[in-house]
Amino acid sequence: MRPVCVIGLGLIGGSVLRAAARAGRDVFGASDVSVADARVEPTVPAALDRAASEDALIVVAVPLPAVDEVLRLVATHAPSCLLTDVVSVKEPVAAAVARRLPDTRYAGGHPMAGKSMSGWDAGSADLFDGAAWVVTTDEETSQEAWRAAVELALDCGAQVVPTTAREHDTAVARISHLPHLMAAVLAATGADGGSLALSLAAGSFGDGTRVMGTRPELVLAMCEGNRGPLLEAVDEALGRLGAARGSLASTGGLAATVRAGHEARQALMDLRAADQEEIPIDLTDPEAFETLRDLGTAGGRVLRLEGDTAIGALPA
Amino acid sequence: MRPVCVIGLGLIGGSVLRAAARAGRDVFGASDVSVADARVEPTVPAALDRAASEDALIVVAVPLPAVDEVLRLVATHAPSCLLTDVVSVKEPVAAAVARRLPDTRYAGGHPMAGKSMSGWDAGSADLFDGAAWVVTTDEETSQEAWRAAVELALDCGAQVVPTTAREHDTAVARISHLPHLMAAVLAATGADGGSLALSLAAGSFGDGTRVMGTRPELVLAMCEGNRGPLLEAVDEALGRLGAARGSLASTGGLAATVRAGHEARQALMDLRAADQEEIPIDLTDPEAFETLRDLGTAGGRVLRLEGDTAIGALPA
Repeated sequence: MRPVCVIGLGLIGGSVLRAAARAGRDVFGASDVSVADARVEPTVPAALDRAASEDALIVVAVPLPAVDEVLRLVATHAPSCLLTDVVSVKEPVAAAVARRLPDTRYAGGHPMAGKSMSGWDAGSADLFDGAAWVVTTDEETSQEAWRAAVELALDCGAQVVPTTAREHDTAVARISHLPHLMAAVLAATGADGGSLALSLAAGSFGDGTRVMGTRPELVLAMCEGNRGPLLEAVDEALGRLGAARGSLASTGGLAATVRAGHEARQALMDLRAADQEEIPIDLTDPEAFETLRDLGTAGGRVLRLEGDTAIGALPA
Repeated sequence: MRPVCVIGLGLIGGSVLRAAARAGRDVFGASDVSVADARVEPTVPAALDRAASEDALIVVAVPLPAVDEVLRLVATHAPSCLLTDVVSVKEPVAAAVARRLPDTRYAGGHPMAGKSMSGWDAGSADLFDGAAWVVTTDEETSQEAWRAAVELALDCGAQVVPTTAREHDTAVARISHLPHLMAAVLAATGADGGSLALSLAAGSFGDGTRVMGTRPELVLAMCEGNRGPLLEAVDEALGRLGAARGSLASTGGLAATVRAGHEARQALMDLRAADQEEIPIDLTDPEAFETLRDLGTAGGRVLRLEGDTAIGALPA
């Protein structure tokens, strides 16, 4: 198995390192902040030099604003290694890779797992167990890098969702970045009610604001890095909340809003509980990536690789 | 100890019945829906007749739209019993009590506990352990009914937050009703992203939409019953989300929104972790209710009654 080199050892990078090691992979890494672990090289360039000499898969695991500088170092120290990343947006990273490393074999990645604690100490080997892990499947994606990224995601306990960088960014604006922004608005509006309001806060407020425990810099890097898709999602939310406001003010009724919300929540639970049909996808087929993208669009995931076949699961 | 008669045996009423029984209280009840339990009387009038003959504390535990009909039955069958309720808004209930039972000794109540499952089967004796339980403390509140409601809340394992009906309704609009509405908007906007988006949904979307698992009728009864205060809270949330939208579109930045949200979440966690100072409040003092309201405004709670003294806890 190809060694793995993780650059950036916060919650996600640190968990990738531990999860890959749990799977028996040879893994090392480096970080700007000091991490006391035998698998950590003293500097990022040292780790990249080792990656080049061992032909490792390089995993970029820094926040978006730091990606370009890491790619600059990769271009200097390990330009021929396979490359993936675990950054929360995919089009900006793909654009940066195309600029800095136009000839490098790259597939973008994004594990959909997290918690409100940040940093190396918050990481764990089981963070990705059962989680979705996007591996971008665009026309220009290198199939070699794609397979290496998929193997890593599966080794880390995740299930792979194949989709394009653009569709990823549009989807996560709705189910990750908008939730953070709504949580920020909800938390601030609640706290404006003073100590009495906070003293009365129970499940709905606690759950609805939990992600705001995350360090603001991380939330900002994630949300600001996905500006276009996030604006669309915010506009839809503003429209829906404004419609609820208008209905409450005029007729006193909120049925349309609440029923739509209940059905949407039910759709989430139904998708999670759905029976799965296993689908083999021949990776040597020239249309393989198209088939994989259709699987992702339908809510399906890749469960494992068997030689040149990806075994997908499609919700019934 | 005075017996307890619970009218309405859904999640909250059913849990009050079990929690009061756990504390050794003599408790019985009735419900429109059939509940197989030895403590349940066959009809609401039968339960109220028994309440009258045993001088029980009556607890109204039906959704707001059903409150008036229950009060009509109380006026017929048990008008001289002490009265409280566990309904999610307090001014509309107080107004209905004043209309139907102008001479009845009444104190409003609202335990801040719940879960997304509804109905008798979802209830449990420990639902209120450590939870806040508002007991309204208005000028016109009967001190006898207040003490009876406080004793019940404490027996159920809760801590009592004394405040006015109006301040309660304003606070819960922000920390309970707005969270439900925001969750509805978030769920619908996420589901509009299709199966791909729902397949990628993880912690932030799951947490932010959880309360939408609740039966829509219950959410509607709660939110629509608190129209004025909820409109104010929705307007503040719309303003904050609109400001975030404007900032993201113009400068690309979300720092003000995210930092305010993070600080607000921190304020919640700080209040929950704060050291508590115990404060004895003499209930025979003519100013006792004012002192109690100040305690509630400051985020404090009543922990126990010792004769004519309420022992409050004030966050440091």
